[in-house]
Amino acid sequence: MTREAHFIDSLRALASDPAARGLRDDAAVLELGGEALVLTHDMLVEGVHFLPEADPADVAWKLVATNLSDLAAKGAEPLGVLLGFMLGDDDARFVEGLGDALAHYRVPLLGGDTVSGGPPRSFGLTAVGRGTHRPVPSRAGAQAGDGLWLCGTVGAPMMGFEALRDGTGADSTAYRRPIALLSEGRALAPRVTAMMDVSDGLLLDAWRLAEASEVSLAIDSAAVPLAAPEARRFDALRWGDDYALLFTLPAGLAPPVPASRIGKAEPLGFAPLFLDGEPVVNAEGLGWQHEAD
Amino acid sequence: MTREAHFIDSLRALASDPAARGLRDDAAVLELGGEALVLTHDMLVEGVHFLPEADPADVAWKLVATNLSDLAAKGAEPLGVLLGFMLGDDDARFVEGLGDALAHYRVPLLGGDTVSGGPPRSFGLTAVGRGTHRPVPSRAGAQAGDGLWLCGTVGAPMMGFEALRDGTGADSTAYRRPIALLSEGRALAPRVTAMMDVSDGLLLDAWRLAEASEVSLAIDSAAVPLAAPEARRFDALRWGDDYALLFTLPAGLAPPVPASRIGKAEPLGFAPLFLDGEPVVNAEGLGWQHEAD
Repeated sequence: MTREAHFIDSLRALASDPAARGLRDDAAVLELGGEALVLTHDMLVEGVHFLPEADPADVAWKLVATNLSDLAAKGAEPLGVLLGFMLGDDDARFVEGLGDALAHYRVPLLGGDTVSGGPPRSFGLTAVGRGTHRPVPSRAGAQAGDGLWLCGTVGAPMMGFEALRDGTGADSTAYRRPIALLSEGRALAPRVTAMMDVSDGLLLDAWRLAEASEVSLAIDSAAVPLAAPEARRFDALRWGDDYALLFTLPAGLAPPVPASRIGKAEPLGFAPLFLDGEPVVNAEGLGWQHEAD
Repeated sequence: MTREAHFIDSLRALASDPAARGLRDDAAVLELGGEALVLTHDMLVEGVHFLPEADPADVAWKLVATNLSDLAAKGAEPLGVLLGFMLGDDDARFVEGLGDALAHYRVPLLGGDTVSGGPPRSFGLTAVGRGTHRPVPSRAGAQAGDGLWLCGTVGAPMMGFEALRDGTGADSTAYRRPIALLSEGRALAPRVTAMMDVSDGLLLDAWRLAEASEVSLAIDSAAVPLAAPEARRFDALRWGDDYALLFTLPAGLAPPVPASRIGKAEPLGFAPLFLDGEPVVNAEGLGWQHEAD
């Protein structure tokens, strides 16, 4: 067990409220005044989640998009964000990117905190949303027999990252400025049996959905929509940062948005995940081993 | 203008939603489903807000208490917190202190994010609460003629910090484990014209309340309840970390909780603050010059 997994296990004793969903979902869901409040918090750390030379405007955009993607996976409409900001050398560029992202998603900044510190700098964002469908989808509802679907593609952020790293000049937008599929998430919420966003790698995230739902997921790798050269397909399944929506639908049901059927849910077998018929017996190497609750 | 003040000014354009209260209050107040949701986010950074040798359990406690103090200032009942955590060497102690604080206030952990990074390590906490009285008190409602009151004392955290720094063995609890005055805030909310918590120094925070309310505040230093030697009175007025509640009440009204009348609100004069009759014409040196929205 990683140090992080051990730490999160020790937090679970403090998270017994049903709103916390056992710290095993993309977001907390708090019932208040007849509404379902959806809450998520993600951090980005210099040298871990972004390079010191990254454009602060891109970092700000990504901070917003990753959090809104968690809301998308719950079919939630964003109400606002709170920012935890560490002052640096090019704060005006950060504000510019933050403004771009908030305008793109039409989400207001509600508050937060500004501190000095670093390097490494770290930023936190809390996104607050309103569930548009009840129950608010979770990772835990997939049923044996359901189809497994993906809205969005995998691979583009990996290619963008490599273009930046290698200075090839190829397009890196998908890595720098990911898109949270908010309207797709809202359209899907009333239909899905389970849903999550793909942030840490499709295979690792599918593993988590399978574990939460206590089913096995069988994935047909060739069916996964790829935004990368075919030779990179198996890398793309593990790379992450895609912010696609992974969801299950009862057999025979078609999704209301463009999506690809990439496999199906089966009764829990001896592995939570089967890739092209082969069991995947542990989560090592499936993706980014940090939890992105 | 400090770099931080400049940054926060540039954020205001993104915070035009009334829920953000112009980034000039202790918390955001979002109307949802007939409830007033109160949201705040504070960060603690190693080397800035706590010493590297601090007990992680105390850091966790303080992170919870500072955020809940913002809810107290709005008369809000806490519903839960989200934690942004950076892994370190003694995470079990952090979880212990977090558990102590959450149990003390009976607040559940709802979610968050765990990352690697640092040193310096940084932690963020988002606290979510429910306003118990409408309108939710702000810093902006003080009227000329109101009494200025303080619930709690100043100076104890300063003395505790110095005891730790100097290794005197004197009690440092008030510095390490501050108390958020939640029940006092709830009792006061229906009566006050303005309220905030004292986090950055009584004089600086009073300056901010005066500016937000567009009044002058006249403070009688001798009336401020002191938890420090008399010789340190003027230091204690500037030190901060007290988490007392500063509020205004219409003249003649007495508070429903133990509190001291430390001055009064007057029509806006040529300074926002008068201390023992002397105008204070700028905020330099009044307290910690970081904003704790």
